[in-house]
Amino acid sequence: MARFFKKRDASIGLAPGSLVFIGDKKVEGMQIRLIDYDTEHLRDEELRDIQSGAEALKSNSVSWININGLDDTPRMRELGTTFGLHPLLLEDVLNTGQRPKLEEFDGVIFIVVKMLRLEEGLVIAEQLSLVIGPTFLLTFQERPGDVFEPVRNRIRKSQGRVRISGSDYLAYALLDAVTDNYIQIVERLGSQVEDLEVEVLSSDAKPDVLGKIHDLKRELSFIRKTVRPAREAIMQFSKLDSDLIRPETSPFLKDLHDIATQAADAIDTYREMLSDELNIYNSSVSNRMNDIMKVLTIFAAIFIPLTFIAGIYGTNFEYLPELQYRYSYFIFLGVMAVMALAMLGYFKRRGWL
Amino acid sequence: MARFFKKRDASIGLAPGSLVFIGDKKVEGMQIRLIDYDTEHLRDEELRDIQSGAEALKSNSVSWININGLDDTPRMRELGTTFGLHPLLLEDVLNTGQRPKLEEFDGVIFIVVKMLRLEEGLVIAEQLSLVIGPTFLLTFQERPGDVFEPVRNRIRKSQGRVRISGSDYLAYALLDAVTDNYIQIVERLGSQVEDLEVEVLSSDAKPDVLGKIHDLKRELSFIRKTVRPAREAIMQFSKLDSDLIRPETSPFLKDLHDIATQAADAIDTYREMLSDELNIYNSSVSNRMNDIMKVLTIFAAIFIPLTFIAGIYGTNFEYLPELQYRYSYFIFLGVMAVMALAMLGYFKRRGWL
Amino acid sequence: MARFFKKRDASIGLAPGSLVFIGDKKVEGMQIRLIDYDTEHLRDEELRDIQSGAEALKSNSVSWININGLDDTPRMRELGTTFGLHPLLLEDVLNTGQRPKLEEFDGVIFIVVKMLRLEEGLVIAEQLSLVIGPTFLLTFQERPGDVFEPVRNRIRKSQGRVRISGSDYLAYALLDAVTDNYIQIVERLGSQVEDLEVEVLSSDAKPDVLGKIHDLKRELSFIRKTVRPAREAIMQFSKLDSDLIRPETSPFLKDLHDIATQAADAIDTYREMLSDELNIYNSSVSNRMNDIMKVLTIFAAIFIPLTFIAGIYGTNFEYLPELQYRYSYFIFLGVMAVMALAMLGYFKRRGWL
Amino acid sequence: MARFFKKRDASIGLAPGSLVFIGDKKVEGMQIRLIDYDTEHLRDEELRDIQSGAEALKSNSVSWININGLDDTPRMRELGTTFGLHPLLLEDVLNTGQRPKLEEFDGVIFIVVKMLRLEEGLVIAEQLSLVIGPTFLLTFQERPGDVFEPVRNRIRKSQGRVRISGSDYLAYALLDAVTDNYIQIVERLGSQVEDLEVEVLSSDAKPDVLGKIHDLKRELSFIRKTVRPAREAIMQFSKLDSDLIRPETSPFLKDLHDIATQAADAIDTYREMLSDELNIYNSSVSNRMNDIMKVLTIFAAIFIPLTFIAGIYGTNFEYLPELQYRYSYFIFLGVMAVMALAMLGYFKRRGWL
Amino acid sequence: MARFFKKRDASIGLAPGSLVFIGDKKVEGMQIRLIDYDTEHLRDEELRDIQSGAEALKSNSVSWININGLDDTPRMRELGTTFGLHPLLLEDVLNTGQRPKLEEFDGVIFIVVKMLRLEEGLVIAEQLSLVIGPTFLLTFQERPGDVFEPVRNRIRKSQGRVRISGSDYLAYALLDAVTDNYIQIVERLGSQVEDLEVEVLSSDAKPDVLGKIHDLKRELSFIRKTVRPAREAIMQFSKLDSDLIRPETSPFLKDLHDIATQAADAIDTYREMLSDELNIYNSSVSNRMNDIMKVLTIFAAIFIPLTFIAGIYGTNFEYLPELQYRYSYFIFLGVMAVMALAMLGYFKRRGWL
Repeated sequence: MARFFKKRDASIGLAPGSLVFIGDKKVEGMQIRLIDYDTEHLRDEELRDIQSGAEALKSNSVSWININGLDDTPRMRELGTTFGLHPLLLEDVLNTGQRPKLEEFDGVIFIVVKMLRLEEGLVIAEQLSLVIGPTFLLTFQERPGDVFEPVRNRIRKSQGRVRISGSDYLAYALLDAVTDNYIQIVERLGSQVEDLEVEVLSSDAKPDVLGKIHDLKRELSFIRKTVRPAREAIMQFSKLDSDLIRPETSPFLKDLHDIATQAADAIDTYREMLSDELNIYNSSVSNRMNDIMKVLTIFAAIFIPLTFIAGIYGTNFEYLPELQYRYSYFIFLGVMAVMALAMLGYFKRRGWL
Repeated sequence: MARFFKKRDASIGLAPGSLVFIGDKKVEGMQIRLIDYDTEHLRDEELRDIQSGAEALKSNSVSWININGLDDTPRMRELGTTFGLHPLLLEDVLNTGQRPKLEEFDGVIFIVVKMLRLEEGLVIAEQLSLVIGPTFLLTFQERPGDVFEPVRNRIRKSQGRVRISGSDYLAYALLDAVTDNYIQIVERLGSQVEDLEVEVLSSDAKPDVLGKIHDLKRELSFIRKTVRPAREAIMQFSKLDSDLIRPETSPFLKDLHDIATQAADAIDTYREMLSDELNIYNSSVSNRMNDIMKVLTIFAAIFIPLTFIAGIYGTNFEYLPELQYRYSYFIFLGVMAVMALAMLGYFKRRGWL
Repeated sequence: MARFFKKRDASIGLAPGSLVFIGDKKVEGMQIRLIDYDTEHLRDEELRDIQSGAEALKSNSVSWININGLDDTPRMRELGTTFGLHPLLLEDVLNTGQRPKLEEFDGVIFIVVKMLRLEEGLVIAEQLSLVIGPTFLLTFQERPGDVFEPVRNRIRKSQGRVRISGSDYLAYALLDAVTDNYIQIVERLGSQVEDLEVEVLSSDAKPDVLGKIHDLKRELSFIRKTVRPAREAIMQFSKLDSDLIRPETSPFLKDLHDIATQAADAIDTYREMLSDELNIYNSSVSNRMNDIMKVLTIFAAIFIPLTFIAGIYGTNFEYLPELQYRYSYFIFLGVMAVMALAMLGYFKRRGWL
Repeated sequence: MARFFKKRDASIGLAPGSLVFIGDKKVEGMQIRLIDYDTEHLRDEELRDIQSGAEALKSNSVSWININGLDDTPRMRELGTTFGLHPLLLEDVLNTGQRPKLEEFDGVIFIVVKMLRLEEGLVIAEQLSLVIGPTFLLTFQERPGDVFEPVRNRIRKSQGRVRISGSDYLAYALLDAVTDNYIQIVERLGSQVEDLEVEVLSSDAKPDVLGKIHDLKRELSFIRKTVRPAREAIMQFSKLDSDLIRPETSPFLKDLHDIATQAADAIDTYREMLSDELNIYNSSVSNRMNDIMKVLTIFAAIFIPLTFIAGIYGTNFEYLPELQYRYSYFIFLGVMAVMALAMLGYFKRRGWL
Repeated sequence: MARFFKKRDASIGLAPGSLVFIGDKKVEGMQIRLIDYDTEHLRDEELRDIQSGAEALKSNSVSWININGLDDTPRMRELGTTFGLHPLLLEDVLNTGQRPKLEEFDGVIFIVVKMLRLEEGLVIAEQLSLVIGPTFLLTFQERPGDVFEPVRNRIRKSQGRVRISGSDYLAYALLDAVTDNYIQIVERLGSQVEDLEVEVLSSDAKPDVLGKIHDLKRELSFIRKTVRPAREAIMQFSKLDSDLIRPETSPFLKDLHDIATQAADAIDTYREMLSDELNIYNSSVSNRMNDIMKVLTIFAAIFIPLTFIAGIYGTNFEYLPELQYRYSYFIFLGVMAVMALAMLGYFKRRGWL
């Protein structure tokens, strides 16, 4: 459960702006991929060195440089210097325990969000950092594998607006993929929540329902911690008064904010449903308990007095007159039958049967 | 329960603005109805093709074009091009999982709300999109059948202000019908809530009350998710600084917002009542349980010691002096009667009887 | 419980501004009373027709026209036309399910609040609408009988400032009477809440406490729904930048807002106290239950093993050596006494006695 | 418990601004004390008549007139007229059920707060009204005895800044004493809350803990109702843009607001702690209950079957073969021992022992 | 638990600005350490008298004077006079029960925060006051031992920006160390919360879990009371429009605010997790209780009737016909076996086994 809070021990006491990788997953080295395009040209290749990336940035075409793997600190430092990134920006990129946020640093927009995936019921978050410049977009991921393949394909096939738009639209397209990813994860957890509802209301809910509710609640809390600040960052992005955002991109960003709001709303709805399910489960457990107790009460309350009467006639007193009458036994049986029926009637009248 | 969240899988990864129908209910094809009116003329007919609708829009009279059925994507694309609608607007129209909202797109006001209906205790939401232009109003519904017949009749019979007002008033009139519809649904659920209250407070509440409370709570949550953003959108509508809204329509929009607020308040009140009912039910269940337990306690506590005493005199010890006295049995009965009365007195004094 | 929400069915589908009476209580016809005064003159009479009221309005003296009974729709329409009231204003007057609010309509201030009264433990709300003009005040009530008699007397006897002030002060005086009325109702319910507290903390609280708590909570919720928007409306009134409000009336309106805030605070305090009382009650019920269970446990745990031992010596085995010893019975009794004492000691040590 | 809401019945229906004393405690007559000082002179005496107070007010030195006892309405009216106080201000002074607040009336600042004291576990509030003028300060208390003696001594001994500052600083000094008083009361209740925590966590918490928690919660609610609006009033005071407040007093007022915030925070902390304690208490009660139930279960579950077996061999069937074998009894004892051990083992394995 | 609220009794009634030390821990005397540096020079020594500190302040290099030990009131007063500190500022420094805050006093920025450390599971807070001037920084601590050693080392070794920046950056560096300290403490408590989660969900959670949850909750509440206002103060610091803050320090302060927000978020997350754990624990306790009760019910319900039947045939009635049949005993055994199986079947069908 270290997911809830990345250990920062490594960076405690260091000078601010020191580059320390904070996180768990490591890949071998750093992978740099450049996709450089305008309406007419397209360059799509793996880069060997940081320098050639820096050259691509200078062109007027949109240059998207994606970096996988953040734990090679010296190369990250080189990258920071080559691309002219603020030390605090770079520190934030490396600290994968960052809260989603948007910040402006000398002429670039810096956005941090999380990409989510489900692994054996646990939601795993991977940090994605975007640096949006006038004609370029840098993206930093912790490891290979992302949700951007459809965007890459649209660039390659010149689908949609992406080839005729700038780096702001590209950033939007990537964030759109991330937000769609949120929706998918929330939907998947949500359908588990809805399945649980049926189980909870059924009469044979098992005690492990409790654990399932707790697990789902924890995962939804985890996602909420990711989605809410991401939505805030997106809202800031859509309202930013910056030369880097073209006016025609603005409605797309508003739309993006709508989708993030939808995801956040759905999370709250599902969390509320889980709370309701917990209440229902607890109520139905105690209802069933009550049924069991009622049966015990009825058995005990009927047979305990009868057993006592039988006990009386089981005593060995020498002078116990009733024992000698010929029909004593049958009267004894009859009296007990009447008592049992009387008690059943009483319980019925009280509504306990 | 897929009602809480429309699956977006179909659109994941597509370029933004791509037209994909997201939703469940489908009708055969697309129905287009034009009602075109001014104070003097009225045209009310089913249109076969989109083009003739576009021509109607050019007139100075108010043209209300209502489209039923959204899943014919190619025709929707044609419609978008013909009427000059922004791709994101059209995407929102087709995504029936949209959150109610108001947006302005190049010279038109775009409002999304939900129409509700009750089907076997479940609230079903159908999306209604309105596009308000200077002299026209486009409305999009998922399927035929709506709450606008009274408005159509008022247009046909020249009742009220609708024939002497513009497209803004027509939009208001439709939204008024939708809000009245909310009130009706809330009222119907509310009267179930109030009926439940009587049942809960009665002494023979059945365990299925729990399920009923849960169902009503879920439906009210569902409506709330619909009504609250709708109210927000209506408030934005009433405060919009736009040429499309005539000053004389403004008090009507404020009134509309009042009604939506009333609906939202009523939902909260009923939800609160349900919570109270749940508490009352739980308390009364445990109260009844306590009554049952008390009876058990009293029976057991009285008869268990007596049975033990009878057991003593049921032993077969050869030398058990009490057995030989002539009045032993009667003394034995008397002692037990005294013990029983003493215990009854003790329980009475403790207030357990 | 239809108090929580007035049925609007009658008006569904009608054109906005249509006059429909929505409410329960009806009186015979409509009563119109005029009190017209300035510092020197006073006219106080029942009016037969609406027209003569309209004439009174034209004078420079303050004209207070109070209308009792709203269900005579044609006369209401006549009244609206004669006094030049906006159709939406008149619709709101007739819809007695209105939420308290303040609105400005062409040169008049329109305020809706509720008057409350207690009837057999239920709070009944009656709608009061005020239309404040430059020299007149129209008030609309559902039925005769109100809390304004002291104000009328002050006018008649020239007490206080009312005769030397305008229609705004008169409206303030009436709203002050309404707010005092809130305080009285809240006080009365509050003293019931305080009485319940004593009952709940006593050891013999009866189960009907639950119902009483619930009833009081519901009534307080009901009042809160009335007082909170009324307070808002009063605050708007006190801050309104309108020629209709003289500067010297302003501190009185602020004071009015203070009193409404006091009422709203008291409602919240009492609701909180009720929640606490419910918790206390539930805790003390389960405490008492625990006491009962403890007694059962001790009786059962002590006597069940003893009875078992007695059972052993009640068996009829032919060879059961202990039975023949002369002191067996006394040893048997002694052993059981020791066991009982040991168990009592154990329970004592565990703190269960 | 009439502390929560002062009865206003006496003033219902009266003209606003009517002087009616609303409150409980009455003293004999009205005591007027004047402390008039500047850097050099000091006059400190009991005044017999209101007129001589009014004369003192005219001097340029700071005149602090403190009035004890508010129920002599005619003298209060005389005082109002002599000192030129607004009727609403005077009405507020007399209504001791006032909510703490700050108001500006023609050239004076009017502040209402409460002084608290603990009497047998109950917090008693006494209303303090301050009227701050350019060179004077009027304070109104319900009865003699206050927390201002240290301030008076500082004035008399020329300690601190008070003799070199104006009426605004004097008002600050008094409010500072009141806020210190809040801190003291909250501390005293808080230490009770902390003592309760120890008691609740101990294994022998008594049921009266419930009542104690409830009492402390109620007292803290009561204080909160007093401190929160007082803090608001102090904040308004510190931000007031008024000639009556000298710039050098401003940091002191900010400090005052800090202390009030500290008191309000502490109240919330203690209330939260009480809620936690209640939860802990309830949990530990049900934990103890569970322990008791477990013992019952184990005793009952072990001995009930054994008793049954003994019962079988206690029957008087003529042909019951086992009875005749010589070792039957010992086999019988052995079987029962094995059964008892098996069950103990089962319970152990389930973790119930 | 006096941690929650420092006793102010000592200062009650004193003139505002009076210097009184409020707190627990005392050290012998006062330790003054000066670190004076610019890009080239460094002076790092213990000062004997206050006067020499005051001289250091006059230089253009950054002078950091750290004072350990606050209870030597006369020297504190001397210090205040020598350094020209506002009396209220000095009073706040001495009152170690201060709420974290930022204030501006004639040309200096005054910040109060808390340093935390864990001692045997309890969080101990020590107050740190910073006075930021144009070229100097005063810090006040209650006792020696702090989290600033890394900062001192960076100054000594000229690492990072600190030697090339001003007093604002130094204050930032110290606050950064404090915030890192918060993160560390929260992490340590958080990992305990996460460990508890595993324990709570396991089947053999012990009752002391309750105490642990309560303890952690209390510590987190305590930290929250410290971190939240500290975050506010940091936010004010980052937004302050003051000559004392250089523009290049601004992004660092924003970053600081991010970290404080992260700490506050983590606290809330862990508190929420604790609440969930408490719910889970309570639910699982009652689930286990239910299991125990079920066993009791089944044993009791099966054997109680059987024992009764055995009791019947244990009676000594002279005429009890069944006793004489040869196979009575075997029929009797058979009947009882059938009854037991029937009941087991019934319980199975009800889902109780």
